Amino acid sequence: MEKGEEVRNKQVIFRDYIENYPKESDFSIKEKTIHLEVPKDSNGVLVKNLYLSCDPYMCLLMKKIKGPVVPSYTPCSVITGYGVARVLDSGHPNFKKGDLVWGTMGWEEYSLITKPEDLFKIDHTDVPLSYYTGILGMPGITAYAGFYEICAPKKGECVFVSAAAGAVGQLVGQFAKLMGCYVVGSAGSQQKVDLLKNKFGFDAAFNYKEEHDFDVALKRCFPDGIDIYFDNVGGKMLDAVLLNMRNHGRIALCGMISQYNLEQPEGVTNLMNPVYQRVRMEGFVVLDYYPLYAKFLDSVLPCIREEKIVYVEDVAEGLESGPAALVGLFSGRNVGKQVVAIARD
Amino acid sequence: MEKGEEVRNKQVIFRDYIENYPKESDFSIKEKTIHLEVPKDSNGVLVKNLYLSCDPYMCLLMKKIKGPVVPSYTPCSVITGYGVARVLDSGHPNFKKGDLVWGTMGWEEYSLITKPEDLFKIDHTDVPLSYYTGILGMPGITAYAGFYEICAPKKGECVFVSAAAGAVGQLVGQFAKLMGCYVVGSAGSQQKVDLLKNKFGFDAAFNYKEEHDFDVALKRCFPDGIDIYFDNVGGKMLDAVLLNMRNHGRIALCGMISQYNLEQPEGVTNLMNPVYQRVRMEGFVVLDYYPLYAKFLDSVLPCIREEKIVYVEDVAEGLESGPAALVGLFSGRNVGKQVVAIARD
Repeated sequence: MEKGEEVRNKQVIFRDYIENYPKESDFSIKEKTIHLEVPKDSNGVLVKNLYLSCDPYMCLLMKKIKGPVVPSYTPCSVITGYGVARVLDSGHPNFKKGDLVWGTMGWEEYSLITKPEDLFKIDHTDVPLSYYTGILGMPGITAYAGFYEICAPKKGECVFVSAAAGAVGQLVGQFAKLMGCYVVGSAGSQQKVDLLKNKFGFDAAFNYKEEHDFDVALKRCFPDGIDIYFDNVGGKMLDAVLLNMRNHGRIALCGMISQYNLEQPEGVTNLMNPVYQRVRMEGFVVLDYYPLYAKFLDSVLPCIREEKIVYVEDVAEGLESGPAALVGLFSGRNVGKQVVAIARD
Repeated sequence: MEKGEEVRNKQVIFRDYIENYPKESDFSIKEKTIHLEVPKDSNGVLVKNLYLSCDPYMCLLMKKIKGPVVPSYTPCSVITGYGVARVLDSGHPNFKKGDLVWGTMGWEEYSLITKPEDLFKIDHTDVPLSYYTGILGMPGITAYAGFYEICAPKKGECVFVSAAAGAVGQLVGQFAKLMGCYVVGSAGSQQKVDLLKNKFGFDAAFNYKEEHDFDVALKRCFPDGIDIYFDNVGGKMLDAVLLNMRNHGRIALCGMISQYNLEQPEGVTNLMNPVYQRVRMEGFVVLDYYPLYAKFLDSVLPCIREEKIVYVEDVAEGLESGPAALVGLFSGRNVGKQVVAIARD
């Protein structure tokens, strides 16, 4: 490709606001063209996208609601998400052709990024590049900040993680094990439960779809109660956890994927229990913790290299497979972090 | 009264477990007799009860539920609560005849207290003795710990207090004003709203019974949102507050009086908002903060003496009026801290 060359640019277009989980028909694939060049007087960068990340928050941006920290998508335009890309042209002094970066980009083959200050440069390429959509990207810092900063864990504590086989959950569980905690995870299939126990080293795990009563399941796994709950799902699971927290327990409210298809979320009824048990529940947004990224990398990269932490990805091939991959998150079709590979170099 | 004399001892007896708020018919007044003497080899103290405190948590102890920190009352026995008393006889080296104390005692004229270690001695009597059921007793430390320790307030922040004319709420609001916060309270009558504004110095107040939509009321009072919510009521009010919290807001979960009559509490649905706004919600139990009592007294007594903090009590006369006074808490009949005076010396 030559600088300035005009090439085809396939894009994933968002049709219109949704009310439930997304369906494949909420998206279309369109083909446009793009000049592989940053416009004159722009300090943007032009990138070739390599890997795109499917994350639950993207469902919230497809709704016409106020609340989420990032604005909703605009109907009939390309959706955005986290990804890994290679810089083809740069108008910004911090970036040059050939740099690898991760951050927010369009779901398309090439993106012109007008605020490159928000991108992270990738300096370590001895690990899979796709990891920068997950364990070494936004979900990684989410797990790190949520567990260490919000949950303030202590050795020997009892930790419960929901959506535990997902991009964030698998890491939280492994962080907790490295800390000497007793760790239980919930997930939505036997395959994921096996992964939790056999691959990620959780002490126990259960398939929430096979439990009639989450309170019973939690009491079975935590006869003495829960010190830390890392909540990725909200709703009925959160309500059952509140019945099982120990004194001075902590709950990190990270996201509530079980509720994103509901116009009115399920009511949580057991909020007197946090009074009796002196429980702290705290919501957090990963953006606030990006200043910790360098420290996070220093701590996690060696663990990956020494295989003290493992990471499971579910990689869909090609931009065209993007909508199905994203939609699959909400039925739990993916096993491990859902990535879309659109180019390998 | 002579030591060892046998005297009449009227008692308020709890009939049986309840499911809603208490009614007067859930209690009866019985007359027993008591020897005004600590039994031999006991290290208890025998006290004459002067003031009894009506507190919302007592409703929870009338239910057959697990959860509350203190065990439920036993049917057909005398109920207990906070009170102020005078020591008539002591088997404990820390207490002597004539001492004034506050702590948990029976709803009766005289009590034998078998664990006097839990009593607080009253050293300052230049303030009304009844204050040790409220501003200088359990509700006072509740307000102090909940506001300063849990809410971590900063000058200029926007503070909302529910049940704001009650024993705890009126203090939280005044602490917040002393700190330079903007303070709004909700209460259940125009008379209480007037008290909040004219006596306790709240910046604004509203009668929740006259608001169709708490979200609208809160947006009117807090156009820029709430930094701190001191929650005494739970339920719909808590749910509406969650829609109005500012980034990094704090919510002290102190009690949920609006829910104590419900077998299944109202569901709180807006729990994604604490994620978006990075809100911390924390339950607490005043017992954990009793070690701060001396520090608390040092800080609050001068404010009372200098009239920087005022306190409104609603005093019912006589043990027989106790059940009606307690029941009245749950319909909001009391104006200010509900006390029952059973003797004055």
